[in-house]
Amino acid sequence: MLIEKRLAELGLELPEPMKLPSGVDLPFPWIRVIGTRAFISGHGPLLADGSLPPELGKVGTDVTLAQAYEAARSTALSMLSSLRRELGDLDRIKAWVRVFGMVNAAPGFTQAPTVINGFSDLILELWGGEAGSHARSAVGLAELPFLIPVEIEAEVLIDSAE
Amino acid sequence: MLIEKRLAELGLELPEPMKLPSGVDLPFPWIRVIGTRAFISGHGPLLADGSLPPELGKVGTDVTLAQAYEAARSTALSMLSSLRRELGDLDRIKAWVRVFGMVNAAPGFTQAPTVINGFSDLILELWGGEAGSHARSAVGLAELPFLIPVEIEAEVLIDSAE
Amino acid sequence: MLIEKRLAELGLELPEPMKLPSGVDLPFPWIRVIGTRAFISGHGPLLADGSLPPELGKVGTDVTLAQAYEAARSTALSMLSSLRRELGDLDRIKAWVRVFGMVNAAPGFTQAPTVINGFSDLILELWGGEAGSHARSAVGLAELPFLIPVEIEAEVLIDSAE
Repeated sequence: MLIEKRLAELGLELPEPMKLPSGVDLPFPWIRVIGTRAFISGHGPLLADGSLPPELGKVGTDVTLAQAYEAARSTALSMLSSLRRELGDLDRIKAWVRVFGMVNAAPGFTQAPTVINGFSDLILELWGGEAGSHARSAVGLAELPFLIPVEIEAEVLIDSAE
Repeated sequence: MLIEKRLAELGLELPEPMKLPSGVDLPFPWIRVIGTRAFISGHGPLLADGSLPPELGKVGTDVTLAQAYEAARSTALSMLSSLRRELGDLDRIKAWVRVFGMVNAAPGFTQAPTVINGFSDLILELWGGEAGSHARSAVGLAELPFLIPVEIEAEVLIDSAE
Repeated sequence: MLIEKRLAELGLELPEPMKLPSGVDLPFPWIRVIGTRAFISGHGPLLADGSLPPELGKVGTDVTLAQAYEAARSTALSMLSSLRRELGDLDRIKAWVRVFGMVNAAPGFTQAPTVINGFSDLILELWGGEAGSHARSAVGLAELPFLIPVEIEAEVLIDSAE
C-alpha cells in the first residue's frame, strides 16, 4: 500500500463518492476497466463528504487561479477515491497514461495549464516521474456541469491481477 | 443479430451516412479500427436520410433540454449506423469503453450530463449494464461544427474475427 | 527514413521544441509511450525556432480561416518534431489512431473541421490513406493556452522494437 502511505504522509484523505445534486442521474461508472486499461470518467473537486466545494464558477472571475489549482489537486483526490473503490489498491496503477484537463474558463482566461498542474503535480508526487508521467492537454471549456471550475478525465495502466 | 433485433423492437432505424453540406471535406473515416479497438469520430444527430435535423444551435437558447436529449439519442443512432457499415454486425461490439459528450452550450447552460444521458440511456438499453457501461465526460463546448447541438466521440471494444 | 524523405520532398522542416513563455511549467512529456501506443499531448503551432507564431487568438476574428488551416498544418509539424525526438524514427509510426482537434473559436465560428483539415491533410500526405487514416473530432473551444488558435492531441500506433 505504497500510494496510501504517501497520501497519509502528505496528510491527504480521499473524499467520499460524489453526492449528486437531487434530480441528477449519471448512468455510467466513474471507472471503466477494460483489461489492463482503466478509463476514468470526468471528475471534479469534492469536499471530504463528497459534496461540491464552495468555489464554483468561471476561473478568472468567480474562482481565482490559486483556487483553481487547488480544485485540480482536489480533483486528483476525487479520482483516486474512485480508483481505490474500483481497484481495491492504488498500487495496482502501474502507469498514468493520458490526462485531459478542462477548465471552466472565464472569457480571456488562458492559463489552463497552470490550473491543471494542480492535478499533475500531485500525481507526480505520489507515483514519481516515471509511473506518474502522462500525456496531457489542458484547455478552457465554455461550461462545465454543476459549475465546477475543473473537470479532468484520464486513462491509467493497471496490472491485470485482481 | 441481437442488437439489430433490439433496435427493431424499439422501432428504431439507423440513418443513412451523413450528407455533408456542399464545400465541406472531411478527410477521415467515421470509424477507425486498430486491432480490437474501434475509435469513433465525433458524430452528431441525423435525420433518416443523413441530413442535419432542424434543431440546431445552442442548447439552452436555440434548442431545449428535451430536444438536446433527443439529439444525443439520435447521435447514438448515427454512430451505430457508422459502426454497422464498418463492422458488418453490431454484435461484434463486446464493450463500450469511453464516451466523450460535447454539448453546444449557451452561456450558463450547465446540464451537459442530462443531455448526454440521451446517448448513454440508449446504449445501455441496447447492450445492457455490463457491455454497455462506459467511462464518460459530458461538457459544454463553445462552438460545434454545422451548429449541431451535440457531438459525441467514443471508443468500443470489438471482437477480432472479421 | 521514408517519412523524413517525404518531409524533405515537401520542403518541410520540423521545428525546435517549444520554448515556454517565462514562468510557465509544463510537468508532463509531449509524448507518452505505453507499449505500442504513443499518446501525444496537446500541441500547437510553432515557428522553426520553437517560439509561438504571430497569428494568435480567436479564429474567425483575430485569425482567419486560411491562417488557422496553416496553424493546424504547423501543429502537425510540432507533433512530428516531438515524435521524432521520442521515437528516433518517424517510420516507427505504423498507424494514426485518434486525433482530437480543438479550435480557439470566436463566437459563431463553426468551421473547426475545415481548420483541422490542415492537420489531417498533411498526415495523409505523409503516411498515405491507410496508415495515415484516423478517427477525428474537430470542435470549437472557449479558450486555449497561450492564445494559440489550434491545439491538437492524438494517439498513434508504433512498432514495439526500440
